[in-house]
Formats: sequence, structure tokens, C-alpha cells
Amino acid sequence: MAKACIGIDLGGTFIKFALLDEQLSIQAQLQAPTPADGGPDAVIEAMAAGAKQLLEQQGMSTDQVLGVGIGSPGPLDLENGIVIGTPNIPGFQNLPIRDRLSQALDLPAELENDANAAALGEFLLGRGKHLQNMVLLTLGTGIGSGIVVEGRLIHGAHGIGAECGHMIVQPGGELCGCGQRGCLERYASATYLAQHARRLVEVDHRPSSLAEVLRKNGDIDARDIQAARRAGDPLAEEVWDRATLYLAIGCVSLCRVFDPDLIVLSGGLTNAGSDLTQPLMQHFRRQHWTLAEPRTDIVLSALGNDVGVIGAACVALQKFRK
Amino acid sequence: MAKACIGIDLGGTFIKFALLDEQLSIQAQLQAPTPADGGPDAVIEAMAAGAKQLLEQQGMSTDQVLGVGIGSPGPLDLENGIVIGTPNIPGFQNLPIRDRLSQALDLPAELENDANAAALGEFLLGRGKHLQNMVLLTLGTGIGSGIVVEGRLIHGAHGIGAECGHMIVQPGGELCGCGQRGCLERYASATYLAQHARRLVEVDHRPSSLAEVLRKNGDIDARDIQAARRAGDPLAEEVWDRATLYLAIGCVSLCRVFDPDLIVLSGGLTNAGSDLTQPLMQHFRRQHWTLAEPRTDIVLSALGNDVGVIGAACVALQKFRK
Repeated sequence: MAKACIGIDLGGTFIKFALLDEQLSIQAQLQAPTPADGGPDAVIEAMAAGAKQLLEQQGMSTDQVLGVGIGSPGPLDLENGIVIGTPNIPGFQNLPIRDRLSQALDLPAELENDANAAALGEFLLGRGKHLQNMVLLTLGTGIGSGIVVEGRLIHGAHGIGAECGHMIVQPGGELCGCGQRGCLERYASATYLAQHARRLVEVDHRPSSLAEVLRKNGDIDARDIQAARRAGDPLAEEVWDRATLYLAIGCVSLCRVFDPDLIVLSGGLTNAGSDLTQPLMQHFRRQHWTLAEPRTDIVLSALGNDVGVIGAACVALQKFRK
Repeated sequence: MAKACIGIDLGGTFIKFALLDEQLSIQAQLQAPTPADGGPDAVIEAMAAGAKQLLEQQGMSTDQVLGVGIGSPGPLDLENGIVIGTPNIPGFQNLPIRDRLSQALDLPAELENDANAAALGEFLLGRGKHLQNMVLLTLGTGIGSGIVVEGRLIHGAHGIGAECGHMIVQPGGELCGCGQRGCLERYASATYLAQHARRLVEVDHRPSSLAEVLRKNGDIDARDIQAARRAGDPLAEEVWDRATLYLAIGCVSLCRVFDPDLIVLSGGLTNAGSDLTQPLMQHFRRQHWTLAEPRTDIVLSALGNDVGVIGAACVALQKFRK
């Protein structure tokens, strides 16, 4: 009998769940808030409860399930299934999340970096279908990435590869949370894009319609900048242009190194749609070498906000099938 | 009966030949000048003649040989064994080098990018032995590279990957021959390092002992800069420091993306030995994230100047063994 897989995408605000059958077809999905109190115990309990609820909804028992895939922010110890620490979920230090969830559900479990899981999902079920080489970038609070080379996710020698958000794109540039200067993330993530606008308005007192947004809302986010840019605000245009330029430079470097079929963009910033891709592609073509026409397409994720949880289920399927 | 493989490394000045047995042990090597006149015909003739000479020296016939591996500068069409064009060997346009050499020798042949071949050689016989993930950089006229992920060379979706010398390390930076601005090659290859010094002396009239070298020799090369730096010349120090800083930034980005066990350096600039590696490692540690200690070592090639030709033989062995 064909068996199903459960994917769990652990985020700072929500935990998402998906059930996929062995043909990678989505059977059910649900979502629960990440417990803010109660530490790791409460989070693992919520993960187990959500998985059980998903099965109940489908009238299934655990013996019809191959296993559970967990997509988690890192850093992780993949080999041992441990979350070393995540900035957005308090109390997660050296947490053996894989084995604890496996015990709670009496099912085998596998841990993967959330962006790697997303890349696997997009590769198997989204834009990457029928391809062999793909890079996925998640443009949100930070910039995560997953890289598929010749059909397989790459992890590096010590499990800390595929961190394209921390390629250095500006020597001696702004200080990133990772301790490096000039990381791609520091110039092109949704958070830092907004921080840049806020600084220009608040510290440099540059004129902009965003000053009014800041006064009213107490902050500026990427959506505000997108809206102001559409309305013709020059400062919003400048900020958006800088972010898409650095993103383009990162994409060119990824083409030189990996020469992928596709670079797929996902995460909050991609809600901007063609407002993101149009200036990005313009910069990309201008920054790209002239030895040959660009052969790598840059596209938005086909799985949208579900790419992470679907990918997590794919992680389990790859691990436990056969 | 165990069979041998022939490696041919095609350079602008010399063609190198090596014979390896199936245990990857080097049996014989030789070298011949690359014919300056006579175009592609003369070069292919010289390649075939050198291979035959190598066999004669060993008292071997072609039926004791599995095949020939060719390492060539590019761009190449790997699938069809064609040199699309190489800047340093005149007349090489869309040359089906693989099939022509195969016919001339009556042996199967395989074509590979010269830096990829070098990486394979270093991986199988040099620093990369017993490892799974390695990046090799060739620091010469330009910066070439070969990348081994989980034991295999990667080529990309269109065969134009592993061009780490054309990662962009300086947005809007100096124009590279490839048409991009700010390529790593443009800041850290032996040629451009020397060009930078020459420009500071000749155009900016900066005081330096290198002005005297330029007057006497008509040019400045990387060795001159290394010598002047050792003698305490501040301009030579500045130039050397900038090149090693950019190289370090490139290495950090490679660590973030590939997380390799090793980055191996080869090519002319590595003749500088610890004069290269010491400042490079200092910059690398300073530029590297603080989330974890650097786990990737940066080392000099163990095969030195022969890494390319030995690698070319390895290409044949991997292709034709079994």
C-alpha cells in the first residue's frame, strides 16, 4: 500500500503542516500558531498535535505514514537532527528536535534547513520539475537559499553550505548579523530594504512620502516602499533600485558558480511580483557577462507560501521511501 | 590487463603530456612548445606527436591505452568536444578538438575545461584525497576554477559553471574582459595585480621601487611586486594587500555557498608561497562570519605546475575506465 508523508515547516510565528502521498500529491494542509510561551516542550507538543490532527482529518493512522520531514531555521546539526539555535524561537538551544518529534509521534523523522526544504519542494513539484540544476532564494527577514546540483540538494562538507544570503556583495559594507560585512542579505532582504528606507527618512531626513507612513505606523515595511515607489516616490525608487541591484549581482555570481537552469525566488518580498522581477531582470542583464546571453531564468516560486511545508514533506519522502 | 591513460594540458605557450596507469600512478611526462604558426592543424599534430612520443618512451602501444583526456582553456562545448574559442591560441574557433585528436591517435578522447581538469587531479591525487568537497582556484593570467561537490566535478546546466573568477566582488568595479564589472579575476589574478601596480606607478606617479623595475624591464609582474613588498616597498604592500583581500572575500563567499573541506590554490601566483597564503588567511579570518570558526582550509596545490596535465589524464580515466 502506498504511504503518505508529513511535512512540518517551523516558523517563528506559525507552524505549517502538509500531508503528501507517495505521488507527491498534496492531501491536506493546516497551520497553527507557534507557542510563544512554554519553550521547546510546547513547540514540540504543538508540532505533534498538528501532525495528529492532519491524520485524523484524513481518517488515517500513523502506520499509513512513511515519516515526517521538519523544515527549521538554523543553524542545525543535520546529521544528529539537532537545532543548534534559532534567533526567532526562544529556548531552542541544542534541541534534538528530530528524535523528540519522532518519539512523540512514533514515526521516523528527518530534519532539514527550511530553505533547503523549500528548494527541494520547488524542485520536485514547482518550477524545477524536469530540471537538474536550480537555486532557490527566500527573500524575507533574511535571505535563505537551497541549491540543487544535478538533481540533489547540496549541504557542504560541514552541513553549513547553501547560505547564499551571506555571499559578500559589498566589500567593507554594512555589518550583517552573522558578523560579516557586506552580505547579500544585508542589502536585499525585505527587512533590510525597509531598514534602509527608515534610516534615510529618520536619520538623513530625506524627503519622502514614507515619512508620513513612519509617523502613522511607527515603522516602514517592504510593502510600504513598494506602494510609495508605485506612487512615484523618488526615495522609495532609490531604495528599491539598490536592493534589486544587489540581488542581481548575487544572481550573476550564482550563475557564474552554478550555471543553474533557474533561480527561483520565494518569501515575503516576492509578493511584489513583477515590481520585483522587472527591475531585477534589468539589473541582471546589465551586470551579466557579455560572453554569452544569460541562459539562467529568474522566476517566482510556483508553490508560493506553501513551498516550505511541501518541501518538508518531500524531505521525508526522499529519506524514507523504499 | 591494466591500461594507461594519457593527459594533455593545452596552454598558450606549452603543451604538457602525462601518462598515468589505472592506479593513478604517473608513469611518464613530457612537454612541447605550442606551435605559434600553422593554426589548429599544427597544434593537433603536436598534441598527437607528443602522445605518441610518450608511448614510445615507455615501449607501449595504443592498445595499452584506455583513452586521452584534454584540458583546454575555453569557452568549450563539452558535450561535443569543441573549443569554441580561446584568446591565447590563434585560429581556435569552433574546433572539434576531441574528435580530431581521437582520429589522429586512433584512441577515444575526452575534453574538459583546464581548471576543471586541474581540480579533478588535485581531488584524486593531491590535497583532495579522502575528501568529498573541494574548490580549486588557478591564479594566473586570469582566475579559473574547478568545483568538486560530493566527489564529482560540477559543470552547471549549460556547461559554463565553475567560473569563480567571475563572481562579482566589487559592485560597479573595474571592467573585466568578460564584460562584467568587479569580477574577482579583475582584482586578484597575477596579471591584474601587476596591472594595478603599473597603473599606480605610471599613471598616478606614486613613488615606489617598482618605478625602477618598470623602467628597466618595460613591465612589472607579480614576482616583482612580491620582491618589492619583501623589501618593504609600501606601494607593493598596498597592491598585494588589496589582491589578497579580494581573494579572501571570494573565498568567504565560496565557503558560504559550498562549505568545502578545502579551497586549493594553484597557478603562477602560488609561487609566492606563504607570502600569498599568510596575508590571505589573515583577511579570510577577518572577513569570515563569527557564527562559527572557519572550517574550510585554504592550501596550496600539492601537484604544483603538473596539476593540469595530471588532471587531464584523470579525466580520461574517469571517462573510459570500466
